[in-house]
Amino acid sequence: MAPSVVAADTAPGHSSGLKKSGNVTSKVSSEGDEMLVLNTVRCLAADLCQQYKGGHPGTVMGAAAIGVALWRYEMKFNPANPDWFARDRFVLSAGHACLLQYLMLHFSGYEAWTMDVIKQYHAPNLHGSMAAGHPEIEYPGVEVTTGPLGQGIANAVGLAAAGKQLAAQYNKDEFPVVDGKIWCFTGDGCLQEGVGQEAISMAGHWGLDNLIMIYDNNAVTVDGNIDACFTDDTSAKLKAVGWHVIEVEDGSNDLAAILKALDEAKTLKGKPVLVNIRTIIGFGSANQNSGPVHGAALGADDVEHVKKQLGFKPDEHFVIPPKVYDYFAEVKTEGAKLEAEWNDMMSKYKETYPTEAAELQRRMEGKLVDGWAATIPTKDKLPKDPIPTRKASGIMVQTLVPNDASFVAGSADLMESTFVNFKGQTEFQNPKLGNGDYSGRQIRYGIREFAMVAVGNGLAAYQKGMFIPIMSTFFMFWLYAAPAARMSALQKLRFIGIATHDAIGIGEDGPTHQPIALPSFYRALPNMNFIRPADAEEVAGAWLLALEDEDHPSLFALSRQPVPLLPGTDRTKIPLGAYIVQGSEDETPDLTLVASGAEVARAIETAILLPDYKVRVVSMPSQKHFDEQPSSYRRSVLPSNRSLVVAIEAWGAYGWARYAHAGCHMSTFGLSAPQAQLYENFGFSPKNMAEKIVAWAKPLRQKDGWDIPGVGEFEELLHNATEHHAG
Amino acid sequence: MAPSVVAADTAPGHSSGLKKSGNVTSKVSSEGDEMLVLNTVRCLAADLCQQYKGGHPGTVMGAAAIGVALWRYEMKFNPANPDWFARDRFVLSAGHACLLQYLMLHFSGYEAWTMDVIKQYHAPNLHGSMAAGHPEIEYPGVEVTTGPLGQGIANAVGLAAAGKQLAAQYNKDEFPVVDGKIWCFTGDGCLQEGVGQEAISMAGHWGLDNLIMIYDNNAVTVDGNIDACFTDDTSAKLKAVGWHVIEVEDGSNDLAAILKALDEAKTLKGKPVLVNIRTIIGFGSANQNSGPVHGAALGADDVEHVKKQLGFKPDEHFVIPPKVYDYFAEVKTEGAKLEAEWNDMMSKYKETYPTEAAELQRRMEGKLVDGWAATIPTKDKLPKDPIPTRKASGIMVQTLVPNDASFVAGSADLMESTFVNFKGQTEFQNPKLGNGDYSGRQIRYGIREFAMVAVGNGLAAYQKGMFIPIMSTFFMFWLYAAPAARMSALQKLRFIGIATHDAIGIGEDGPTHQPIALPSFYRALPNMNFIRPADAEEVAGAWLLALEDEDHPSLFALSRQPVPLLPGTDRTKIPLGAYIVQGSEDETPDLTLVASGAEVARAIETAILLPDYKVRVVSMPSQKHFDEQPSSYRRSVLPSNRSLVVAIEAWGAYGWARYAHAGCHMSTFGLSAPQAQLYENFGFSPKNMAEKIVAWAKPLRQKDGWDIPGVGEFEELLHNATEHHAG
Repeated sequence: MAPSVVAADTAPGHSSGLKKSGNVTSKVSSEGDEMLVLNTVRCLAADLCQQYKGGHPGTVMGAAAIGVALWRYEMKFNPANPDWFARDRFVLSAGHACLLQYLMLHFSGYEAWTMDVIKQYHAPNLHGSMAAGHPEIEYPGVEVTTGPLGQGIANAVGLAAAGKQLAAQYNKDEFPVVDGKIWCFTGDGCLQEGVGQEAISMAGHWGLDNLIMIYDNNAVTVDGNIDACFTDDTSAKLKAVGWHVIEVEDGSNDLAAILKALDEAKTLKGKPVLVNIRTIIGFGSANQNSGPVHGAALGADDVEHVKKQLGFKPDEHFVIPPKVYDYFAEVKTEGAKLEAEWNDMMSKYKETYPTEAAELQRRMEGKLVDGWAATIPTKDKLPKDPIPTRKASGIMVQTLVPNDASFVAGSADLMESTFVNFKGQTEFQNPKLGNGDYSGRQIRYGIREFAMVAVGNGLAAYQKGMFIPIMSTFFMFWLYAAPAARMSALQKLRFIGIATHDAIGIGEDGPTHQPIALPSFYRALPNMNFIRPADAEEVAGAWLLALEDEDHPSLFALSRQPVPLLPGTDRTKIPLGAYIVQGSEDETPDLTLVASGAEVARAIETAILLPDYKVRVVSMPSQKHFDEQPSSYRRSVLPSNRSLVVAIEAWGAYGWARYAHAGCHMSTFGLSAPQAQLYENFGFSPKNMAEKIVAWAKPLRQKDGWDIPGVGEFEELLHNATEHHAG
Repeated sequence: MAPSVVAADTAPGHSSGLKKSGNVTSKVSSEGDEMLVLNTVRCLAADLCQQYKGGHPGTVMGAAAIGVALWRYEMKFNPANPDWFARDRFVLSAGHACLLQYLMLHFSGYEAWTMDVIKQYHAPNLHGSMAAGHPEIEYPGVEVTTGPLGQGIANAVGLAAAGKQLAAQYNKDEFPVVDGKIWCFTGDGCLQEGVGQEAISMAGHWGLDNLIMIYDNNAVTVDGNIDACFTDDTSAKLKAVGWHVIEVEDGSNDLAAILKALDEAKTLKGKPVLVNIRTIIGFGSANQNSGPVHGAALGADDVEHVKKQLGFKPDEHFVIPPKVYDYFAEVKTEGAKLEAEWNDMMSKYKETYPTEAAELQRRMEGKLVDGWAATIPTKDKLPKDPIPTRKASGIMVQTLVPNDASFVAGSADLMESTFVNFKGQTEFQNPKLGNGDYSGRQIRYGIREFAMVAVGNGLAAYQKGMFIPIMSTFFMFWLYAAPAARMSALQKLRFIGIATHDAIGIGEDGPTHQPIALPSFYRALPNMNFIRPADAEEVAGAWLLALEDEDHPSLFALSRQPVPLLPGTDRTKIPLGAYIVQGSEDETPDLTLVASGAEVARAIETAILLPDYKVRVVSMPSQKHFDEQPSSYRRSVLPSNRSLVVAIEAWGAYGWARYAHAGCHMSTFGLSAPQAQLYENFGFSPKNMAEKIVAWAKPLRQKDGWDIPGVGEFEELLHNATEHHAG
């Protein structure tokens, strides 16, 4: 099926079913107008990409009818108030097709999205523009930042899970206060990406019937025909994982068929819905249905061709006939009406269900339950005996999570090992499966780390601060999730990440499970609070920091093995990034040992073995927060101009040269053996470290003080491991 | 279907069909013996985990019959020569079930796998052992290191693709010199992981009928019943992506049914085969079919229970009745026979097809075509005009790849942008789809970056040096692939990774596509050659380094935008990691500017704007290789004790404090704008950088030289970006 460009006989018809739809009104527009609208969008896409010779015109031209169906007829929103809580939410997983979204936002009446703004797409510009190359969450009508393929599907699953949960928690028979749909627009790419498949499997498992995914099935990728790399039967595949599937044959021409399919999709219950729509990429172009129209401007000649084909003047650009605005005129009034109706319902809801309404209001404002901080046990109430920091984190979970519906705590199949399960839990679960329902706040993400965090981004993006996803797996598998955690940081979406078994302490599982380089990524990642607490007290501090910081995700690296509660640790100092846990600021130490996590206790043991030196021990739970302190503070903690500073950490040395002259680190991948043996084997026994440090210090010690090494002078901070020691 | 433990009436039968199978012989063992073998394996698993109170007994006990079917009857191998080229290859994607593999290797007659060695599983041990917590490639009978779930499936797909390619290139009608099957053992976890799904889609697309994947369908995960998180209809899902599917109802008892299914699987053509086998995890345990038996020792009482259930003495441990060895006795002789037959065929093949045989021999020895290095254009033959380094890399691809069948060059749907396509290419493709066949060395991996690299690990693991996978995508999406690249480094599997559009130079695609933190991961990763060439000459050097290093993967970060060919660059100095491109070693510079990639040219332009200083410019394509040089060389290039060293790189500053006192770096995420504007906007214009450097230098300059800053003294190497600047 490869129709030529629009001709009268294939012009879009109109479905009376439309009356039932979101923003649709009794007004029926003519076929001619609809054709004009579609072709205007196509010509604008061609002009906008040609203007600065770049961008992605093809999908916009091919899927124009899908965009019109969504914004003109199907979706519930109020252009005058993009943040209206009860709106439908739209995710453009195929982020490169952003022009389709920008143009629809413009025609729907979002004031910020003027044509002048949209014309900045790919424009020379010093500070970026709203019309970015991929949609950015900061701007009206954009729910999440997309671009890295596949993640948008998972974000949509998270938004749908959020909607289901709120509905289960707050809706009452006569008060459907939360009933918005989640619409996801995907191309072939997102369906090939594993994270998309993980999220699709999750959505089918959960039976999220408020999720409608539209597959812009244009069968063309950057490299050409999709058959070269992708021959899945997507409809059958999604049926096999619990989705309803509706197919539309001619999605570039047949607006009526699209509307019929989307109307039906809204009524289907018990499963998410895939609407598989066959489109012609670059519709109207001389190269329609081929690779070249995907990711490059069409070229002046082809733009002329498009204009002629679609009945526009070849030499006129950015033409928008008034009828196009007329066609969308009622979207704005209808949207305002819908919000007003909802506001009326909410005021009645507040009267009838004041408690639920108050809690919903609190969460809509992104506030935690009053007095939450005071519920965290003080240091004297923490276990005296050594416990793993992952278990200490579990104490915080047990304290905070049961009392505040804002928290959803889950794991990628390591619930018990990561201590994110909590008392009185109900599982977030497909009610049909029993053992839970949508009100549940304990989420079993399955063995899908990447989708877990991308779904978490959807939860966090539903409404700022309304959901705080707590997500957990072994630290090593936060590498699987890293592309999603990066998107959390880019969008400043808060999550609390629990990364347990964080080093060689995982022991017998061996080198495949022992991170060496991964911390460098999370430490270098902008906007990420990466914290490695030394004991239960610092774990408390990490939780306090994460919950007081609304704008950044936090990831806690936690030990598998027990660590003692250290006398010198202080939760209030976590925001400083590093502080003295043994020794005093008043005296200048000969040696400063700086460590993190489980190695802080070892640093203290090591100090005891260095009686000939004044030794200070510093805990550095967060390099980032330390870097944010004034240099006077940093110098007072790490006097690297007067004291020999030695770093101790069971990860690679990369990045430590900023803080220390030398260090004890992992210089290879790990091994499979019990953790105690591994610490010994890789040189982290206090005795071994004390001997090394003396060997470094002796030649540097002068009568009049220290011959302090300069930048990069010390071999011990060579970062690279070059061999995996196979026993 | 939940059968109780083995009873006479459910004891394994025996299929006469076995005669046709891999290692099977005319000898028919009795049912009693087979039951005894299965129960011996189960009791050993229980004992081995109980011994040191750790490990994964459940899958071994549940899938014992699958292991016996594979090693005793189905697979082709020679225990006396684990590296026999024509063997079948087995991948334990569910790596935690390693005891199953270790025990089968022992019973099959692999000398290295004594029971004493296997008893070291989880044993206190200073240097790791062969019986690691997950299978490690260094040891006999292990084809790839597995453990991180999902990747084993992709490794198996790579091994199968390798086998198909070699068969297409070298087999002749009467000489099936390459005809081994690839067997993959997977659990629920690998099927939930996105990388597994990506690889499954690829294998179905390619129609790899030499791949047989066995799904140990025990319906239980660490966290309990699989229904809590995973309700895919896996059989239907795989049918939808082009797989044959065979199901076995009772995989814990019915060995005959397993053998029948595997026999059939070997005969099916045109598609990969899933054998979906329902098993009872922890078969024989009081807790069989539940979470607790998955990842922990059973406990002394349950071990006793197991022994009683399976007819062993509760108080005896590690019992192996002689009949068990008898049962496997012929595997060794049969394996030797099969290799001898193949050797005979090979000698005839050498006579009949000397050319093919010689090339196959060369590749089996992991050698490149003689004189390959000399074919790389010398500097004077490289383009004089500025070109992107990605395009320069394309010159090397065009030079090397067509002439050596060892290379397979592919991309995750960015073939044109990454310049890995080469002249005279044939696509590696399912012949049924046309447009290529299995002999093709141009691979379209689809939009599946993670699976691309995990499949590449399978190609590289087929036989050391036989395949050199060249794999490409934008640098940002090497974050999707990072968990597989880490496994390449851990296993020392060589690939050549092409990471283009490596910084803000990608421009309009915006912050979602602009890496800031990612380089820190690859620089900190042991065994990885991460190289960022400054121009076409350094690109040549990067390729030379990568191809001369058989034991490490290499990743090249390459520019989207054109860069000039710099007079001072020298391919022979890439192995030094950093070297002087402007200025001389003889004079001590006032200022040393150290840069990488596209920023080296900017550093040179900046130097010109600093006439009041003696300025040296250093190119640092590889921090790792620089760190491996003697301190005398490092000091001679970066005299940070006598010269102010300033780093210039359009990534985050993390890690640079080891080399420089200050730097010009990205301190936030990027923006969507043309690349030239972004370099300007983020402070990388030579004018702006020169002004900054003068401002830093002035106060430090003394009559008698420099007041050199100490470790961590300079604000300009604060690594953390804290805000995403939204326009």
